[in-house]
Amino acid sequence: MASKANLSCVLFGAGQVRFEDRPKPTIEDPNDVVIRISYVGVHQWVHGGTEAAKISAEAPLVMGHEASGIVESVGSAVTRLQPGDRVAIEPGVPCRQCRHCKIGRYNICNSMRFAADPPTHGTLARFYKLPQDFAYKIPDSLSLQEAVLVEPLSVAVHVARLAGISCNKTVLVQGSGTIGLLVGAVAKAFGAHSIIISDINSTKLEVARDLLDCYTFQIDTNSTSQAEATRLKEASGIKDIDIVLECTGVESSIQMGMYALAKGGTLVQVGMGKPFVNIPLFAMCDKEIEIKMSFRYGPGDYETALNLLASGHVSVKGLISSTVPFEKAAEAWELTRQGNGIKNLIQGVQD
Amino acid sequence: MASKANLSCVLFGAGQVRFEDRPKPTIEDPNDVVIRISYVGVHQWVHGGTEAAKISAEAPLVMGHEASGIVESVGSAVTRLQPGDRVAIEPGVPCRQCRHCKIGRYNICNSMRFAADPPTHGTLARFYKLPQDFAYKIPDSLSLQEAVLVEPLSVAVHVARLAGISCNKTVLVQGSGTIGLLVGAVAKAFGAHSIIISDINSTKLEVARDLLDCYTFQIDTNSTSQAEATRLKEASGIKDIDIVLECTGVESSIQMGMYALAKGGTLVQVGMGKPFVNIPLFAMCDKEIEIKMSFRYGPGDYETALNLLASGHVSVKGLISSTVPFEKAAEAWELTRQGNGIKNLIQGVQD
Amino acid sequence: MASKANLSCVLFGAGQVRFEDRPKPTIEDPNDVVIRISYVGVHQWVHGGTEAAKISAEAPLVMGHEASGIVESVGSAVTRLQPGDRVAIEPGVPCRQCRHCKIGRYNICNSMRFAADPPTHGTLARFYKLPQDFAYKIPDSLSLQEAVLVEPLSVAVHVARLAGISCNKTVLVQGSGTIGLLVGAVAKAFGAHSIIISDINSTKLEVARDLLDCYTFQIDTNSTSQAEATRLKEASGIKDIDIVLECTGVESSIQMGMYALAKGGTLVQVGMGKPFVNIPLFAMCDKEIEIKMSFRYGPGDYETALNLLASGHVSVKGLISSTVPFEKAAEAWELTRQGNGIKNLIQGVQD
Amino acid sequence: MASKANLSCVLFGAGQVRFEDRPKPTIEDPNDVVIRISYVGVHQWVHGGTEAAKISAEAPLVMGHEASGIVESVGSAVTRLQPGDRVAIEPGVPCRQCRHCKIGRYNICNSMRFAADPPTHGTLARFYKLPQDFAYKIPDSLSLQEAVLVEPLSVAVHVARLAGISCNKTVLVQGSGTIGLLVGAVAKAFGAHSIIISDINSTKLEVARDLLDCYTFQIDTNSTSQAEATRLKEASGIKDIDIVLECTGVESSIQMGMYALAKGGTLVQVGMGKPFVNIPLFAMCDKEIEIKMSFRYGPGDYETALNLLASGHVSVKGLISSTVPFEKAAEAWELTRQGNGIKNLIQGVQD
Repeated sequence: MASKANLSCVLFGAGQVRFEDRPKPTIEDPNDVVIRISYVGVHQWVHGGTEAAKISAEAPLVMGHEASGIVESVGSAVTRLQPGDRVAIEPGVPCRQCRHCKIGRYNICNSMRFAADPPTHGTLARFYKLPQDFAYKIPDSLSLQEAVLVEPLSVAVHVARLAGISCNKTVLVQGSGTIGLLVGAVAKAFGAHSIIISDINSTKLEVARDLLDCYTFQIDTNSTSQAEATRLKEASGIKDIDIVLECTGVESSIQMGMYALAKGGTLVQVGMGKPFVNIPLFAMCDKEIEIKMSFRYGPGDYETALNLLASGHVSVKGLISSTVPFEKAAEAWELTRQGNGIKNLIQGVQD
Repeated sequence: MASKANLSCVLFGAGQVRFEDRPKPTIEDPNDVVIRISYVGVHQWVHGGTEAAKISAEAPLVMGHEASGIVESVGSAVTRLQPGDRVAIEPGVPCRQCRHCKIGRYNICNSMRFAADPPTHGTLARFYKLPQDFAYKIPDSLSLQEAVLVEPLSVAVHVARLAGISCNKTVLVQGSGTIGLLVGAVAKAFGAHSIIISDINSTKLEVARDLLDCYTFQIDTNSTSQAEATRLKEASGIKDIDIVLECTGVESSIQMGMYALAKGGTLVQVGMGKPFVNIPLFAMCDKEIEIKMSFRYGPGDYETALNLLASGHVSVKGLISSTVPFEKAAEAWELTRQGNGIKNLIQGVQD
Repeated sequence: MASKANLSCVLFGAGQVRFEDRPKPTIEDPNDVVIRISYVGVHQWVHGGTEAAKISAEAPLVMGHEASGIVESVGSAVTRLQPGDRVAIEPGVPCRQCRHCKIGRYNICNSMRFAADPPTHGTLARFYKLPQDFAYKIPDSLSLQEAVLVEPLSVAVHVARLAGISCNKTVLVQGSGTIGLLVGAVAKAFGAHSIIISDINSTKLEVARDLLDCYTFQIDTNSTSQAEATRLKEASGIKDIDIVLECTGVESSIQMGMYALAKGGTLVQVGMGKPFVNIPLFAMCDKEIEIKMSFRYGPGDYETALNLLASGHVSVKGLISSTVPFEKAAEAWELTRQGNGIKNLIQGVQD
Repeated sequence: MASKANLSCVLFGAGQVRFEDRPKPTIEDPNDVVIRISYVGVHQWVHGGTEAAKISAEAPLVMGHEASGIVESVGSAVTRLQPGDRVAIEPGVPCRQCRHCKIGRYNICNSMRFAADPPTHGTLARFYKLPQDFAYKIPDSLSLQEAVLVEPLSVAVHVARLAGISCNKTVLVQGSGTIGLLVGAVAKAFGAHSIIISDINSTKLEVARDLLDCYTFQIDTNSTSQAEATRLKEASGIKDIDIVLECTGVESSIQMGMYALAKGGTLVQVGMGKPFVNIPLFAMCDKEIEIKMSFRYGPGDYETALNLLASGHVSVKGLISSTVPFEKAAEAWELTRQGNGIKNLIQGVQD
């Protein structure tokens, strides 16, 4: 039997996966830790930085960026962790030197190394090495399966932080998928006064109602975005929508969000659809609207996500749909591609 | 001879102007002042709120919103002004009660009354009445002609304030018309590290170079917005453009601004072109860009504009192209419509 | 029997109270409303602006600034309210013209008229007149007794807003009186990660534990402020206290807060004790601490307070200790002066 | 003759200096650069972190933290610099891992290594090693002597940034020493509307007037701080002082600043005097004042300082009083201790 010292799931072209044993990472930087991976999440949402075209047989890539694990070994300068600690993994390691890193926005680092974003290998392997300050010890109350969800939850925390959600804000979340649900949950935890979730799919809206106990609105795809914005405000009775969190990336949804916003409102764009979108500039101008792109997560977002889980303000248990063994990783991807489940997990390599 | 007690220049349909004598305003609110108008500016830039269709023979409108004058009389509670004071006029009076007014954003007041925005009459008359706190005493060093320019200068101040311009920011101003030039001058006074002004018109760029002593860039209209953004960064040697102040409203220019922006940058939209524009969402996402619409001016903007003029940090003398007597107001509009002059003025009614 | 058309409780010297019938307010400004007072709160906490020395037999003052009531009549421009509406009263009416009002900080208005702050009369009368936008319609779920507490709750909201409380912040509230308890409740609703309440009085701390389910810390008055800060951090296990909300005004408590704060922390000063306090400048310097004075409440604070009550995030029922009839107002003051009860109420004039 | 491979000026007790040859630094981290020191500044202002008591014969310390030099050698990952580059040195290297570093406030890093702050050695040696991103290439127009002043200028930039100085702010700078003068110059470059500098020493105020062309105010030490605040406002005609930059650390001056501030104003504390100061809490409360401690400099401050020098907005030439050879370092300290000169320099080791 072949060695499984650091069995890894590798992509060597679009949709082409193989398992291979790669060298186990060794600690060189005294601040590094090696994690034995417990679970990895399968991801539906395309990262802006992921460029599949860079992956080939000559430049294969270990997949995976949402992950949890157990500390295997630590470098000599490591003070925050010790072997045996259960951790959630933040998959991007910034350069710490560029002006974005220094000013507190490391998510837009000029030299980011992000798991599974070529040429940086991902977390879908037996072992994964990273600096100690990007591996977060999780509370006892949190399972290693749930810890995988800290990654998308941190995306949601970043969105809520950019949006400036607070106690007297009314919020519209567009899209009731994984990110939309997490964004809604975080908006609630941040104290938002009223939350509406919209989607075209009534089943997804039922999930939102169950999880978040919020007002839901089903989009009529035969109507115009402007008419839907008006209908939403009338149906919900909320005339002043201060914040729109757009999690679909669909052009008509983006437009609807801009029409729905109150004067002085903010739209945060989370989802990505097509490269160009048409926006109603006139309708936005005299409302003096602000649009913010949200990209990944920055300082404090992982800590906040963990705090929300530890305190019970947010729960992600209900979002985990399935778990497959490491060797069946491809099945989990196929499941996800077909739209089955909210979050499907892959278990780490078992002995 | 007909009375000229309060001779006014009135629009009663598209392009249809007549002069008529209207009742002289009388002070009812003890905080009001009546101003004898000295000069009124002719405006090329369309206010978002102006809806020409609302003007008719049955609902005529006194024109004009940029204006200076001399205090004629004051209400019993007026403490800031006295008859004879020379003032710049802020043309919008907010309700002071809605949440936008209270929170420090009166420019997006829910019940704004704005000069020459139907049904509120404008400043192009012998007399104009407004609350004392929207008439600003001007310094001796400033002429009443220059005082008319405080209005567009306040637009520029508002833009710079929204953009957060400060000492280590690099700024691209798109459009070298009146607003672009003022925006550039204010960006400089706010301490911007480097300023580039772009336009398609080389003559306008020469004006910018003369007035602002800044780097200028002529847009090649045969190229793409993405290519022009790249060319601008290479030609100027400024790789990280932190702030784009878009003063044209032209779609290709807006796109170029978004391509030109550095990671973490902010684009403030000032100009208005067509109702919808197509924007490069993908290119903006991983830069985590922010877009802000800028609408008119808010608290402190008039004061800042006057401070900049009083201290000599900004000069508007060079922008005044012509002055016509009140009775020839239509000529000034025609001149402006044809693109002659930067800012053409109309003198107030003479005895 | 004397008329009770507008029976009022009037102070005409320190501790000297009499009841007299004063003219019923009449609406002159079309934006005003007249409220029939339902309940008035008795106040322990001295407003910075209250200057008792200005009150005399020649310049008597109607008392009371925390109040609820029912709309009796409305001016011709009133759109927000109608007779019969149940309202919470915001007792300060700003000038709406000064730079502080315009910039969104009307609580530091240069010409504020604040109920029971000489020479402005208070709410402890049958009727009280104010502009429509300072009377807030309360939800059906809120009693008129509870509505009195919207005033101190708004003080707490203002404090939390100044402090920038959000989901990953740890907060120390110093003082477990009415304001301390409300500040703690609001901090929780704003999502604060961990909350500690400290006091010298163990009974008061028990109330805090019951109401807020938070960590409490009893100050040892025989120890130094520096030692107590260290002991608090060790006992609670919270090493990094991001925000201190100082509600006592006691010098040793202020010092302890400054010692307790983490690097980069913020202390908001709410309570007022003696005119001068000694602070440990060296200890604060290399932590780059920020100190903010909090004064009353500003734009949005009343709305937020009402949202928190309507949603059930904060409850004030448990803070109401007693209610006396209007004619026994003096008893309620005496009760409060002796330290009995958390919040004692005075009922409005009954027919 | 003894080797002078890395001749260093070493403190081995209070006031006890010796010169000794220490090992030349060698590059281990690929991001490090070695600088050959050109000039070092003598410092009057005590860093909060400096603890002289930690220095002894057993734990001697190389002195110096303000410095300029020429790149001698670079590590393999260095891209920003090459040998021969002229640089200004930022003397503090943060850990880049703690929450303060990540959030954009590395000046309050939990594990800062700061030149000449025990046990970290300083810059007063032939060679000095640091990471590439803390050595800033200087423009050709700037001399290596002037480059030493980038350090105190960055202190001033940090102060102005914390204070939020912008175009319509009025500023009082207290203290007309090196830091006060630089703070005043930066406030001007940031566009402050009006600047007043106060001091007890008329000669120092003359320097301020010459360098900054601003209003100056001589403190009468026989008066009270409250009376002086009133006199300053009357004499200058500036009633609303928005920002006070306190550069003396003297208790009476701090108090005067608090009395002088307008409602809603901000005082930034720069200077350090005695460990405790008495402050007028009542006088601050209803003005809702904010006090910020300023500590060293953070992200962008060095870049901004260099931009201000490169553009000519700030000049430091006039602040350099003397230059002594390396071997006479002790003389420069004695000169400074006696109060001679504004900024005295020590030249680097000559062959």
